Parts: sequence; C-alpha cells; structure tokens
Amino acid sequence: MDSSSNGGAESAPLKLSPAHTRQWERVCQHARDIRVLDSIQWLLDWDQQCYMPSAGAEYRARQFTALAAYMHRLWTDRQFGDDLNELAAGPLADQPYSDAGATVRVLRRQVERMVRLPQTLVEALANARSTSQQIWVAARKANDFRAFAPSLAETFRLKRQQADALGWTASPYDPLFDEYEPDATAADAERVLADLQTQLVPLLDRIRGAPRRPDVSILRRHYPVAAQRRIGRRIASRIGFRLDAGRLDPAPHPFCMQVGPQDVRLTTRYDERFFSTSFFSTLHEAGHGLYEQGLRADQFGLAPGDYCSLGMHESQSRLWENLVGRSQPFWTFAFPWVQQAFPAALASVSQDQFYAAINDVQPSLIRVEADEATYNLHIVIRFRIERDLLEGSLAIDDLPSRWNDEYERVLGIRPPDDRQGVLQDIHWSVGIVGYFPTYALGNLYACQVYEHARTQVADMDAAIAEGRFGGLLNFLRRRIHHCGRVWSAGQLIERITGQALSSEPFMNHLRAKLLPIFAL
Amino acid sequence: MDSSSNGGAESAPLKLSPAHTRQWERVCQHARDIRVLDSIQWLLDWDQQCYMPSAGAEYRARQFTALAAYMHRLWTDRQFGDDLNELAAGPLADQPYSDAGATVRVLRRQVERMVRLPQTLVEALANARSTSQQIWVAARKANDFRAFAPSLAETFRLKRQQADALGWTASPYDPLFDEYEPDATAADAERVLADLQTQLVPLLDRIRGAPRRPDVSILRRHYPVAAQRRIGRRIASRIGFRLDAGRLDPAPHPFCMQVGPQDVRLTTRYDERFFSTSFFSTLHEAGHGLYEQGLRADQFGLAPGDYCSLGMHESQSRLWENLVGRSQPFWTFAFPWVQQAFPAALASVSQDQFYAAINDVQPSLIRVEADEATYNLHIVIRFRIERDLLEGSLAIDDLPSRWNDEYERVLGIRPPDDRQGVLQDIHWSVGIVGYFPTYALGNLYACQVYEHARTQVADMDAAIAEGRFGGLLNFLRRRIHHCGRVWSAGQLIERITGQALSSEPFMNHLRAKLLPIFAL
Repeated sequence: MDSSSNGGAESAPLKLSPAHTRQWERVCQHARDIRVLDSIQWLLDWDQQCYMPSAGAEYRARQFTALAAYMHRLWTDRQFGDDLNELAAGPLADQPYSDAGATVRVLRRQVERMVRLPQTLVEALANARSTSQQIWVAARKANDFRAFAPSLAETFRLKRQQADALGWTASPYDPLFDEYEPDATAADAERVLADLQTQLVPLLDRIRGAPRRPDVSILRRHYPVAAQRRIGRRIASRIGFRLDAGRLDPAPHPFCMQVGPQDVRLTTRYDERFFSTSFFSTLHEAGHGLYEQGLRADQFGLAPGDYCSLGMHESQSRLWENLVGRSQPFWTFAFPWVQQAFPAALASVSQDQFYAAINDVQPSLIRVEADEATYNLHIVIRFRIERDLLEGSLAIDDLPSRWNDEYERVLGIRPPDDRQGVLQDIHWSVGIVGYFPTYALGNLYACQVYEHARTQVADMDAAIAEGRFGGLLNFLRRRIHHCGRVWSAGQLIERITGQALSSEPFMNHLRAKLLPIFAL
Repeated sequence: MDSSSNGGAESAPLKLSPAHTRQWERVCQHARDIRVLDSIQWLLDWDQQCYMPSAGAEYRARQFTALAAYMHRLWTDRQFGDDLNELAAGPLADQPYSDAGATVRVLRRQVERMVRLPQTLVEALANARSTSQQIWVAARKANDFRAFAPSLAETFRLKRQQADALGWTASPYDPLFDEYEPDATAADAERVLADLQTQLVPLLDRIRGAPRRPDVSILRRHYPVAAQRRIGRRIASRIGFRLDAGRLDPAPHPFCMQVGPQDVRLTTRYDERFFSTSFFSTLHEAGHGLYEQGLRADQFGLAPGDYCSLGMHESQSRLWENLVGRSQPFWTFAFPWVQQAFPAALASVSQDQFYAAINDVQPSLIRVEADEATYNLHIVIRFRIERDLLEGSLAIDDLPSRWNDEYERVLGIRPPDDRQGVLQDIHWSVGIVGYFPTYALGNLYACQVYEHARTQVADMDAAIAEGRFGGLLNFLRRRIHHCGRVWSAGQLIERITGQALSSEPFMNHLRAKLLPIFAL
C-alpha cells in the first residue's frame, strides 16, 4: 500500500535501532493479540443479538466477562506499557502522524485508560453488558420500564464509577464520551447541539406551516418482507458492500459489527407496512460496513487500520443513508428497481412523489426512523438526559417523565408509552453511555465531507444517477477509510475539506433539499 | 440436586481442611474459567459452519489460535497442577467416584495430556482446524481431492506429532482415540469392529437374497423444505429438546454443539427429494442435544457436568434416531403428523409401508445416511484408514483408491467420485482423528441401554406410541446424563445394565427388526 493510502500522511519508512525494532514488533504483536480477543467479543455480541437462545444469556455474560478480564490483563501488561513509553519518548517522538507514531500514541492512550480501571469494575461492566441487554429486550417487549429500571440504575452506577476511575474535571460525561469521540467533551457536545437546536427549530416551524406536504401514505402500503430482503441485499452490494466478506441478518436492532477484517456484519429489521424501516437502515449500516471493509486489513489492530472515531463512523453511515440514499440522483437510478420489487405498492407512484415522501419532515418518536431535520433533536434530548443521569441531577425513577416532557418541549409530541419512549434504544442497556452525540457529529461530518466530495469527484451526481458509486467510494476510501485513526476526527475533517467542523454545510443541505419539497 | 442425581454415586458431603478447601475452590474456578473459553471456541465453530462469510476464514483461524493458546496456558498453569496433585494424593484419594474425586481425576488426566503438548503444536493444530475446514468445503463442492490433499497431509502430520508428544506404545492411534473415548485403544476398536463385521456380513447376505423388499421410492418423492423445517422442530421439541435453550439451523454438515449450559445448537441439512436426510439427522442431533441439555448445569466445567465419552454421547443420538425414531411405536404416534405435513407424498402410503421404507437395508456410500445394519461397516473402513494413515502405512495420495477399494470389498459398492467417497466427512478437515470408532461404540451402548430401559420404564412402547417420551428421557437423565463423566463409559454401561459391553443386544435388535421386514 503506497503512502497515498493514508491520505498523504508523512509516513517515512520506519528506521529503528535493533532494540527499538524488537520493542516495536512486540508492541504490534501484543496489540494484534488484544484485537483478536476484541473481535471475538463482537462475535459473541452479534450472536447474542441475532441467534442466541434466550436461556443462553446467563452464560453469555460469563463469556463476555472472561474475555474482558483477559483483555484487561493484556492492556495493563507491564512490558507492553514500558515498550510503548520508550518508543513514544524515543524514536517516534517526532513523527506522531506516521503509521508507527499514531499506533503508539493511540495505544498509550488506551493503556492509560485501562490501568485506571480496576479488574473488578471491568468484569462488572462486562457482566452487566450482557445481562442488562436481555432484561431490556424483555422490558421493551412488555412496555415495562419498571422491569428495566434496576439494571439500568446499576449500569449508570457502574458507568459513573468508570468515569470517576478514569478521572474528570468538568463533567463525568467527559471520559466516557472521549472513548467514542477522542478529545471531545460534554461542553463541545452541548455547544454543537445547542447550535443545531437554535437553527433547526425555526426551520421546523417554517415546514410546519408549509403550503405543500408529501403524501407519505405511499410508504405505508404493503411491502412484502421477502422483496425487502432482496432489494436490501442488492442495494448494499451495489454501493460496494462485499457480501462474501460480510452478512446482512434480521435483528431487533439494526447495527454493524466487525467480527474480523474480512467479516463485517450488518443487521436490519423489516416492517411489512413501512418501506423505510429496512431500506434506509440497510443503507445506513452498509455505510458503516463500507468503512469497516475499507480499513487497511494489513493494519488491523493498529491505529492506521482502526476507525477514526464513532462520529466519523457515523458520518459514513449517514452519508450513504441520507446524502446518497435520499437524493434525487440516487432515486433516478434506484426507483425503477424499487418500483419493480413492489409493483402493487408503487406502480402508480412517480419518482417525484416517492422522493418527496422519503424526505418528509415530521416530528416523531423513534430516533432511528427520524427524518434528517428532526434527527438531531432526538440526540439533544438523549445527550442531556444521560449527562444529567451521570452527573446525578436526574434519578432513574424520574427518567420516563423527563424523557416524555423533553419530547413534548423539543419536538412537540409526547410518547404514549415507554416502548416508543425511553425503552427504544439499546445503548444504555449494553453500557454504552456518552455515545449519542457522535450521531449528531456524524451528520455534520457527513455533510461537510459530501459537499467537498462533489467538488473532487468528477460528475458525481451523474454517476450516482446511473448507479455508479465507485468514484464516491474511492474518495471516501482514500481520504477517510485508509487514514484509520492516525488523526483525530477534527484534524481529519480539516485535512479533507480545509475547514474546521461547521454546521453550515448541514443546514445548507437541509434548506436546499427541503424548501422546494415543501414549496417554501 | 440429591445424591440420586448422579445415579446413586457415593457422593458423601465434601469434608476438607481449610487449606484443602481453598485448593478445591481454586481448582473449580480455574476449570470453569477454561470451560468458558472452550464454550467460546464452540461458538466460533458453530458460526464458521453456519453463518461466517467465506472471506472471514483467515481471521477466524487467528481467533481459534488465540483461544487455544490461552487455554493451553491455563491448562498448564503450575498452581493448578500442584493443587490437583495435592488434592488427589490427600483428601480425595479414597473417593474417586465422588463429584470432587471424579473432577480432580478427570482434570489431572487432561493436565497430563496438555503439559506434553508444546504451545507451538497447540497453535498449529488450532490454526489448521479452521483453515483446513474451509479448504475441505471448497474441495468437496468441486469434487477435487487434490485440492484438499496438502492440508489433509498437514493435519495428519500434526496429529502424528500430537500422538508422539502424548506418548504411545502399541499405536499412535491410541492417545488420540483416548481423548474421545477415555481408556479405549485401537486394539479395542479393532476387536469390536471385527466382531461386528463378522456378524453383519452374513446378515447382509441374507437380506440381499430376501424375498421381499421395502418400496423406498416413497421416501424420494417431493418433500417441501419448509414443511421439513416445521416437522423437524416439532419432533425435536416433542421428544424434549428445549428450543428456548437451543437452536436448529441449516448447515452443510449436521452437528450438535454446546455453546453454554443453556445453549445447545443443532444443525441439519435438507434434501427436497429425500425425506430421511433432515428428519433422521434432526432426531440424531436432538439426541445429542438432549444429553447436553440434561447435563448438570451446576457442574458445568467439572466432571459431573461433562459428558461421559463420545461413544456414550453417540449412544444418545443413535438411541433417539434409530431405536426410538425407526420403531413401530414411534411411527404409530408420528406417522399422522408426517402424513399431514407431506400430503402429496404420503397420502396413499400406509404406516407399514413407510416403516419398512425407513428401515430398508442397502449398502450405500454416505455414512450419515446409512441404515442401521450397514452403518458400522462405514466405521470399519474409516477406522482402519485413519489408523493406517497415522501409523504411516498409508500415504495421503493413495487415500482415494484405498477408500474406494475398501467400499468395494466391505460393502460391495464403489464410489463414483470423491465427493461421495473420501471427501464426505468433515472430521479430518477439522483435525478430528481417532473419533470414528465412537460411532460404532455408540450403537452398541445404545442398544444395550435401550434393551434395559424397556425393563425399567413402565409401558415404554405404549407411551412412545402416544408421543409421550418423558419416561424414557427421565431414565436416560437419571442413569446417564446426571452421571456426567464420573465413571468411564465401560463402567457406566455395567452400572446401568449389570453387563459388560456386548454386541449381542445390537445384533438381537437388528435381527428382530429386519428379518420380518424382509420376510426372512
């Protein structure tokens, strides 16, 4: 792979003394060993969400715990830490953005986190991850928040312990958020989200009073599941997702998991009475999948072969879901396919009607089905709630009413039950706290990257209208996927676009798309 | 669980000094930790055979290798070995068949094996297990033995290394066979199989000249796969297999794997033009599954919660597949179900015709589809071939012709290609060598146990004819499943039936069933 593979990094050939070479090789081997165990955890997780029989949950928790404990031992291995420190202080001190320099920097950062966590806490978190998820599945099904509350309280108790062990000054949210979006803080999230809220609310008000509304009933016709499966696989494959190096399975919650460098698994869920659920979640997860399939396999387990941040990860899914998947050029290509797959539902529907329907804006209850304009407001609500839970200013028992009040205040609608409210997302049940803002960041990264890609990829819209996605994908591969975790997301966005992260491309995109649809 | 749970074992309450108690607790924890990793390996294996994308194979091998290396380190842990030795020499010396005594004895035996294996060989075997399997899948599909030969040669080279490291006197086959059937030797296998061959050949000769033959064409009608799936799940569930603590998936090779104490997974394969493939393989694997679901969950990872031997395991699958599943009482219950599931194929077929067809005897090429009378002859062939490969008197390149010659000599038919010959079984591709004789032992154990069960379970045949399997299952639970690995298979069969293992019940069963069917 040539030096352009990581977007023009200053990757000089690595020149080390024999002693440093031995250290470097030990470090790489050790990091790859840890990554193997991590990949096994992902398989356990995939299996738990897709195929594990319900009675298997209790022992699955033991399996997670055993792997987490072993990984923690490897992370905190004395020699590993010493090797990293010596390499960082010595030969790699002046090349922080070379493959090797970035690898050492990122690994040291993780080692520093891990040594602060006691093994007992690591095991308790791993155990909670698996058991709490099963309780959430049952509680959501039964619409019974009370049944979930004790294990949710326990999760937040452990996450707060984790934050305290990692250390924080402004907010216990910071060290948890930092795990998903390195170098970002709760204050950053609050600023970005408040800015979005300020701009989105007037836009939504305008749309609320619009003279024309799309006919969304066409999306609620009968869409046979078998045809949805076929079209989902066909589209995922067409945009470049390799099904021989991945899978697409049904699961209660759509996700993407990397079980190995050539084994990337997507899930989706099907609703026979709603076109969008599986189609757009498949495009979304396939966007994640393209990122993971595009990482440098030779660097798997090291920074240049890792994703940049979860915000950047989300940018890839949102880019394919929304910027490609809800665009006019895309539907010029895809509408005949989809019309043919669902003749009963779509025979008498025009592409323009369809395009308007999938871009309708309507405050709604379920985040993963929210439109582009209201989506970030779901994140505003979740972010503030989880921050307050962690900081201790909100009690678990008050969570459902706070959730429902916020929906009423921010989006103007109130969930009729907890299934469509606080029980909808899997994250907290698996101990993922401090993650939600990465979704909003992803939306912003996506728009800024996409706006730039149009200036770089020749005739991009015309190619997409013909179902040719290679130009765009190659741009993403070269400028994002192949860069791995060498730079932070903030650095990367500047390197790609020449600009710091801004909400402007996102708001411009929304206005340019939505105002014509609503005849504003 | 009371003392009758392991069939009346002399399980006095464990009385240990404080120091020995600490040792005992450390030993149990360590053994359970190893078992957790082992269970994860089974999930990797299940996934590889059911769902892993093809490109994932290379990294899967790394995952297996990492776990195997870690398990090997735990098995050879100094303190673990010391604790076991002290407990065995001290407080447990006089209670070899108590739960604790058996646990220590079985663990020491495994530790002794493991310390003889170098870590590099353990890793090479784990790596070969995964990569070779993928090559076998492709080679079988392409009917191309040459493509498989190099990795098969490598597997046998490693297995011979393993046998040499473990140590042997009479044959390198012995230490490998011993892993699957503790205390049994190649000479034992040769004696049992030669005895069976001597008795089966004349019986087959008589059947060959029989005045009446079943009409087997009724099994080759059209059996829609969807209905096969439904009936398979229904029957497995009816005999007692818990689908909430297990699964049934399609896979190229039928198997049963225990991913956890409450997570037992079966596979089957479907042939739309042959009733028997999925129906009897499902019953077979469900028999294995009932054994695993019947093991004492509180002892998971310790001898009382482990299966006795693979021969005893196979006895449970063959018992449900053949002694129950091909009996008149079973079909009195099941024929209406099956007739209703496949009306087009079976509407005009009588239960007697169907019963005769599923009990037809006909030398055939595929082991897993062989009838009860010829099945053991497939084992005779495999056993002698793998023994000769290991001992070095047969070369890999000569394997297909030796295989085909043996089929001609022993069964009177010659495979037209390697797909139906030497490439049919998965075992060697995953490094399982020395396993095949356990199938024949399983047939003998099954018949001896079943003959005895009829004298112990009230009105067993009548209950089965009504679809009530609880009496038989409880008998098996109590006398076999709950005994775990406390006794060897040879001891267990004597404890249950009062007799040493014999081929007599098996031959009596065959004659009693087959002679009337063939009007002999």
